[in-house]
Amino acid sequence: MSNKKSLSIIKIGGNIIDNPTELTQFLANFSKIEGNKILVHGGGKSATKMAQSIGLVPQMIDGRRITDQPMLDVVVMIYAGEINKNIVAQLQANGINAMGFSGADGNLIQSTKRNHPTIDYGFVGDVQKVNTPLLETLISNGLVPVFCAITHDKNGQLLNTNADTIASELAIALSEVFEVTLNYCFEKAGVLANVEDESSVIEQINSALYLKLKAEGAIHSGMIPKLDNCFNSLNKGVQKIRIGHHRMLQNVDSICTIIQL
Amino acid sequence: MSNKKSLSIIKIGGNIIDNPTELTQFLANFSKIEGNKILVHGGGKSATKMAQSIGLVPQMIDGRRITDQPMLDVVVMIYAGEINKNIVAQLQANGINAMGFSGADGNLIQSTKRNHPTIDYGFVGDVQKVNTPLLETLISNGLVPVFCAITHDKNGQLLNTNADTIASELAIALSEVFEVTLNYCFEKAGVLANVEDESSVIEQINSALYLKLKAEGAIHSGMIPKLDNCFNSLNKGVQKIRIGHHRMLQNVDSICTIIQL
Repeated sequence: MSNKKSLSIIKIGGNIIDNPTELTQFLANFSKIEGNKILVHGGGKSATKMAQSIGLVPQMIDGRRITDQPMLDVVVMIYAGEINKNIVAQLQANGINAMGFSGADGNLIQSTKRNHPTIDYGFVGDVQKVNTPLLETLISNGLVPVFCAITHDKNGQLLNTNADTIASELAIALSEVFEVTLNYCFEKAGVLANVEDESSVIEQINSALYLKLKAEGAIHSGMIPKLDNCFNSLNKGVQKIRIGHHRMLQNVDSICTIIQL
Repeated sequence: MSNKKSLSIIKIGGNIIDNPTELTQFLANFSKIEGNKILVHGGGKSATKMAQSIGLVPQMIDGRRITDQPMLDVVVMIYAGEINKNIVAQLQANGINAMGFSGADGNLIQSTKRNHPTIDYGFVGDVQKVNTPLLETLISNGLVPVFCAITHDKNGQLLNTNADTIASELAIALSEVFEVTLNYCFEKAGVLANVEDESSVIEQINSALYLKLKAEGAIHSGMIPKLDNCFNSLNKGVQKIRIGHHRMLQNVDSICTIIQL
């Protein structure tokens, strides 16, 4: 048995952020989780809407947003400002001592600007370092960190960063000092064996099954980087990973997929 | 002699925020201040610009912004998002372990929605309570809090809050545990005896002189609530207050006004 304290890291995606009723229900479930916890949130559609309303044309390559300076300004405003602070205020109303962060705050998550051989992603960051001692101090003081998907390079530059990656990098770093369960909440009840059949949730998936389903084409597109992230995290010390609907946070393992090595 | 550690609280206004060169110079001066410190920043013109660019018409009564829901969304985005995170990232680049906050974060500043007999200011907060123990913990861990002018009511509502008031309420609350110097930085070299003569800086002002200059009309409009705040803070335990250009942060008392009881 490990003597480490447990820590739940929960990542929510845009579909929850975009739906106020769903978000309130999620935050109620999140608030009931006992013990140490961290929330990581993505952005949803509001950054795109805001960009369009001020005349920017969002650019995407392979499903990834190209973040030029005006678009960076928008994602910082929306992710670190509007979404993060409204989530923190709602959690405070639920009696949770939430504290909202970008990676720049307390140098909690430092990243480097992506340097891709052929595509200029703009101001996009790849996570380099998590400030584990400071996070441990904050958590041990009863705080519940709420991270948006913005980091920095420690040279004054904010960087747009994938929220799934932030969740997994936090999980890996903090597994040095906590027994970490990582939960990816989205609109479905788990990883589906057949993407058109909502009832085809795979209860458990290991790397052998993952490779088989990927080869068969049953698992594809956005689920591939998500699961790659998961197996990478498990290989680097994360205790348990679940993907599913946020109702799983009430200890209902049956409505999610458990990822294991 | 007091055994309390010293703490510098510095508030900057919109004129510094709106000018990137001035802001960078200010942040360099701020970074050089030794010992414990807190930065409080106002908003500047970017919230008004953003509001106009998305079709909102800002409403003001007696120089105060009326904050309806769409305007609240804008100020949260700009103050807590864009301005706060860019300041934090720049301070991190200067080697300062800055951490950006709204009052909702860690329930650091709780306020109540203003209830005015005749004017509905909208989502505007009056500071009620500062979380002194948590701020002391953060500061004692080497962190430099950076506050934007957004607070919350602990019931899930974010509230637009005057930055001068935030600075003075932080100063009053923290004077229980620190020896606090409060510094208001703006574009002038201090309180002017003649508003049209930049060289007429009043070196020291006490409440008797203040009342005299106010009666004569030499001190008027925006300077009145600012100085009222100052005398209130001194009466409630703040050690020293200065108003002036941010060059005063380099211990140049001669280019500012010192406020004393």
